[in-house]
Amino acid sequence: MSNTTQPLKVAVIGAGYWGPNLARNFATSDLWELVAICDLDIQRASALAAKVGHPAVVPNIDQLFNDYEIDAVAIATPARTHHGIAMAAMAAGKHVLVEKPLADTTKAGQEMVDTAATSGLVLMADHTYCYTPAVLKIRELIQSGDLGEILYIDSVRINLGLVQPDVDVFWDLAPHDLSILDFILPEGLSPLTVTAQAADPLGSGKACVGYLSIPLPGGALAHIHVNWLSPTKIRSMVIGGSKRTLVWDDLNPQQRLSIYDRGVDLQCQELTNEDTSDRRNASISYRLGDTWSPALEEFEPLGRMVTQFHSSIQNAQESPTDGRSAMRVLSVLEATSRSLAKGGRRARVIGESLRLAEAN
Amino acid sequence: MSNTTQPLKVAVIGAGYWGPNLARNFATSDLWELVAICDLDIQRASALAAKVGHPAVVPNIDQLFNDYEIDAVAIATPARTHHGIAMAAMAAGKHVLVEKPLADTTKAGQEMVDTAATSGLVLMADHTYCYTPAVLKIRELIQSGDLGEILYIDSVRINLGLVQPDVDVFWDLAPHDLSILDFILPEGLSPLTVTAQAADPLGSGKACVGYLSIPLPGGALAHIHVNWLSPTKIRSMVIGGSKRTLVWDDLNPQQRLSIYDRGVDLQCQELTNEDTSDRRNASISYRLGDTWSPALEEFEPLGRMVTQFHSSIQNAQESPTDGRSAMRVLSVLEATSRSLAKGGRRARVIGESLRLAEAN
Amino acid sequence: MSNTTQPLKVAVIGAGYWGPNLARNFATSDLWELVAICDLDIQRASALAAKVGHPAVVPNIDQLFNDYEIDAVAIATPARTHHGIAMAAMAAGKHVLVEKPLADTTKAGQEMVDTAATSGLVLMADHTYCYTPAVLKIRELIQSGDLGEILYIDSVRINLGLVQPDVDVFWDLAPHDLSILDFILPEGLSPLTVTAQAADPLGSGKACVGYLSIPLPGGALAHIHVNWLSPTKIRSMVIGGSKRTLVWDDLNPQQRLSIYDRGVDLQCQELTNEDTSDRRNASISYRLGDTWSPALEEFEPLGRMVTQFHSSIQNAQESPTDGRSAMRVLSVLEATSRSLAKGGRRARVIGESLRLAEAN
Amino acid sequence: MSNTTQPLKVAVIGAGYWGPNLARNFATSDLWELVAICDLDIQRASALAAKVGHPAVVPNIDQLFNDYEIDAVAIATPARTHHGIAMAAMAAGKHVLVEKPLADTTKAGQEMVDTAATSGLVLMADHTYCYTPAVLKIRELIQSGDLGEILYIDSVRINLGLVQPDVDVFWDLAPHDLSILDFILPEGLSPLTVTAQAADPLGSGKACVGYLSIPLPGGALAHIHVNWLSPTKIRSMVIGGSKRTLVWDDLNPQQRLSIYDRGVDLQCQELTNEDTSDRRNASISYRLGDTWSPALEEFEPLGRMVTQFHSSIQNAQESPTDGRSAMRVLSVLEATSRSLAKGGRRARVIGESLRLAEAN
Repeated sequence: MSNTTQPLKVAVIGAGYWGPNLARNFATSDLWELVAICDLDIQRASALAAKVGHPAVVPNIDQLFNDYEIDAVAIATPARTHHGIAMAAMAAGKHVLVEKPLADTTKAGQEMVDTAATSGLVLMADHTYCYTPAVLKIRELIQSGDLGEILYIDSVRINLGLVQPDVDVFWDLAPHDLSILDFILPEGLSPLTVTAQAADPLGSGKACVGYLSIPLPGGALAHIHVNWLSPTKIRSMVIGGSKRTLVWDDLNPQQRLSIYDRGVDLQCQELTNEDTSDRRNASISYRLGDTWSPALEEFEPLGRMVTQFHSSIQNAQESPTDGRSAMRVLSVLEATSRSLAKGGRRARVIGESLRLAEAN
Repeated sequence: MSNTTQPLKVAVIGAGYWGPNLARNFATSDLWELVAICDLDIQRASALAAKVGHPAVVPNIDQLFNDYEIDAVAIATPARTHHGIAMAAMAAGKHVLVEKPLADTTKAGQEMVDTAATSGLVLMADHTYCYTPAVLKIRELIQSGDLGEILYIDSVRINLGLVQPDVDVFWDLAPHDLSILDFILPEGLSPLTVTAQAADPLGSGKACVGYLSIPLPGGALAHIHVNWLSPTKIRSMVIGGSKRTLVWDDLNPQQRLSIYDRGVDLQCQELTNEDTSDRRNASISYRLGDTWSPALEEFEPLGRMVTQFHSSIQNAQESPTDGRSAMRVLSVLEATSRSLAKGGRRARVIGESLRLAEAN
Repeated sequence: MSNTTQPLKVAVIGAGYWGPNLARNFATSDLWELVAICDLDIQRASALAAKVGHPAVVPNIDQLFNDYEIDAVAIATPARTHHGIAMAAMAAGKHVLVEKPLADTTKAGQEMVDTAATSGLVLMADHTYCYTPAVLKIRELIQSGDLGEILYIDSVRINLGLVQPDVDVFWDLAPHDLSILDFILPEGLSPLTVTAQAADPLGSGKACVGYLSIPLPGGALAHIHVNWLSPTKIRSMVIGGSKRTLVWDDLNPQQRLSIYDRGVDLQCQELTNEDTSDRRNASISYRLGDTWSPALEEFEPLGRMVTQFHSSIQNAQESPTDGRSAMRVLSVLEATSRSLAKGGRRARVIGESLRLAEAN
Repeated sequence: MSNTTQPLKVAVIGAGYWGPNLARNFATSDLWELVAICDLDIQRASALAAKVGHPAVVPNIDQLFNDYEIDAVAIATPARTHHGIAMAAMAAGKHVLVEKPLADTTKAGQEMVDTAATSGLVLMADHTYCYTPAVLKIRELIQSGDLGEILYIDSVRINLGLVQPDVDVFWDLAPHDLSILDFILPEGLSPLTVTAQAADPLGSGKACVGYLSIPLPGGALAHIHVNWLSPTKIRSMVIGGSKRTLVWDDLNPQQRLSIYDRGVDLQCQELTNEDTSDRRNASISYRLGDTWSPALEEFEPLGRMVTQFHSSIQNAQESPTDGRSAMRVLSVLEATSRSLAKGGRRARVIGESLRLAEAN
């Protein structure tokens, strides 16, 4: 279907919010030829096409697969339509890139992953943050052992967001945090349970303020705060390690990452002075070392992502945001919804092995 | 025991971490005469006495109550000793100010409150934040209706803290947040349940990272993040209202409070366009108004607090941080511990009426 | 040459650093048709053309004026070439938009302005900041009297900049500050003198660090700090007024403008207590009022600028960044260079009336 | 007058703005015994004495020198009185610490320095910043060569300040910056000339906004911005070096110092491509390395300062803020006033050698 000298041919399906970003990056990549924009709203598709070198404009996917020779599609439509479009695309022999989340249920997602595996096609999620300089550096620092063991991760992603018609604040924003966790944690994202708290104080019918707790190996804890109602925008993540702690402030371009050689060391000695009222007698010690902020390369993450999509197809190079990674994210999202449905009680995450067991 | 022309006489019990702050404020207040510093560690007591005008130095409370004529005591010893000292003080007819938390159990706290009520003595908690210019202004803005209905409150209080020998991170830090909530919320702090998540990734034997969710009236949610392991210090609170949202950044002296006339308004119209992939079709609208930061008076909160203690005694003026307020804080702390003990399940808050019912 | 129903036709000359921004904005404006990109470096011109809807690619201006029917040109080439290209364009009857600075000498600039006036063509400078929401709001606040009389203006524009082959740091960066001053000051920018200090500590042959003092009416002072060698980026302006003070932090998208109702009021009383060592006896008083941050519209300034260029041509609507405004900026830049040449002594600004007098 | 086992005896003269800070630090130092507070305003002196362990209260220096046995005095009175008090103190055989600036003229200051030298007494200026952890670290980083050659220094010290009855903004605030420069620069502060610009837009009779340019060796430039009229407080210093650049933000306790391994390297190649409009062809290269923020010790600078005063007396240990250092600061201040008097023209700094020559 493709060879090493020719760029691969791709169509972008969905010209709404995210499609233009995908289209622009495919259009400016030497590895890709953007053949078509597909959207029910022809006017919107045409407007986008005009900005990215005038690829064809197609109103539906039947026509797309019938009339155009393409290798792959990039799907940027509402989550509930991902499954149908992706299955049709794979049935037509196309590789598939899907905007997050992969699907609106794990059942649908698993079918997509299975179909890709069976048919030898690439199925990849557009988890954009995994292609940013900051997240790549964080992964490197964790994997090199510079931070030590992970003690806790606290992620905050809040701003005056657009209350979505079809998804709640977890399904809208948390895929970012979850895909990042899956990417940076040595063992990936595979909690057994999660606990979620949420509020819908406007009565919108869905959670607008949400908190998600995810136990990590070794007694560590990840916590995610997502919020559509905050007038200030915060995108930060603190990763506490036994050696050092990393703070990622994505809205501070002058110092996105700070690594603090500072922390608490626990000593094993027993306290014997029972009568003390002095706080300083605790059995711990502090390191108050330097702070370090690594220089980061500058590149557009989506450019890296479309390159990865190409490599995955051309060279069978595994993608860090492949279908199975996307399923781990989806499993946690679904468990989050179950926790909310149970009034904030702990909910089991049904991971791959469980799904297989249940399926059999 | 006192008249309007003479200052009241007070002793500070405990010369450790917080006692010096209390001693300094009593010493510089015209309303008070600091008579004695009491601490088992005489050297420490003497060092403190030397800095605050050389009051007497006393090694224990028996001697204090026997040898000195005082109207009141201020207790700044470890939480587990508050009950014993306060009960002895009230038995000796002294008014009592107690460092937060009021006691280490609600049972102990309730006994203190009951004893104060029976004996006509003032029992007050040193919830210092309730006397800060920022919190006083926040309370005013909520009570005047400027923020509208409260939708959510998100409080973060993290820094490289001192792992305490006797209490976990909730009991150490959350009294601040809880007493503030009790003070600023029109209905006070009286949730039926709370849910807590925590981690002790260092194996210290107690929670070092904690998250607490508190349902508020009308579907609103308060959430508190306390953390001893963060290399960066954050003390912030976001109070989302239906009209405006307030952000309190206590570490930004140049702009502690910001009020955003910005938010999300929900419309009641139904969405009919099912096929949209455009995020902008949601049934909401946005206000993107100005931001406003009120000028705050500058004064030392502890100065206000010792003045309030004086008024409560002299003029029977009710204190916003009286024993009953402190009990509401304590009830939530105890429920937090119960939630943790149950692995993060929702725990009932046993408030005053329940305690009364259970006691009968 | 044009009518109200047809878009005007424009060519962008120069496909280097700034040309692409101009080309993109002309390409996406309904008022304009981007007909050609002109650059000696055909490859660069073609690459740009591919991104903006494939206008024609032309290697030189002779060919441009001969072969293409255009109404206007936008010049984004090095400053020393502006005069030649603009004069040729006006000779060919084209309206002209020029990247800042208008020219590399006031003599050249004046000739351009005079030619435009004589031939009835529009000559406009691309002083982009004058089309930003922040600067438009600042102008409004000054002109409405909200700030009171201007007392001082302090502008800082520093970052790790590109040491330019042909211009020093003043000619590179200060046109921004100067054009903003010309736009926001009620009387425009027309100082009689300026004083400049500079350093070239790398021995690059031109100033890399510069300070410029500009006396304003009524004893006020404007001061500009431009610097290519700063590792941190700052773009801020403080405008002190007799009523309020405005701080513009262009790198803080969440609060670009802050208006402080805070300041110093001078009283006329005489000090009589000669022996005081107390600083608080000074004959002044302070206002410590609120801070206010107006919501700003969001739009792309260059979009507004190309719209203004269109209005100036079509409707003879005067532009705030017309040739005469650009000449005031150029006059100050030239005086800055003269001050530097004299070792930092005060240099006279040769404004329009002086130039006219000297020319006669 | 003193021996190694007894603390030295000191009196603080002036109980206004700064005296209390000195008194508190002498009172809490084991090396000193605070014997008396001297102020014409006895009430003020008494109030201060009550807070620092009840030393004697004395209304004038005659009585002080007659009635009390002291080794040293610390002078915190208005600048114009420093000379008289210090001369009287030295005549009485006392060592002298003087609040900045040393005196109100270099003539007066030189007489003080000469007298101290002749009489073998210590004369030291309270240039507090030279005893802060940040400035000590900056000095270390410069002297170790970590920053390379100094290219420029830009200091900003602005806030809503108290318009002083007797001094302008330079004499009030710039002693801080100048004493820091004298302390951190390998060669100290010894410019041949300075140039100052200022404004008095309120008509207060003295400069309220000021800019001072100081040429440094090797074509480098130091620039100081002092301002009493700014509603926001900034205390920052950028020190550009040939290897690294340091940014000191004194109001950011979490990251006061940042060292950027980032900068511009100039190459010697000639530019030949005359026709380029591309900014990237300049003959320079950029380093975009990491940022590093050293941990700083925490201690009170005035505590260090009174210790230094003790060492200088007891052990004849030279002080970094001795009279000669203070004279270098004073010489620049006086030249600043001369530059202002000449309308901002460059003014010669009359340093020690010149003063000696002129005196002979």
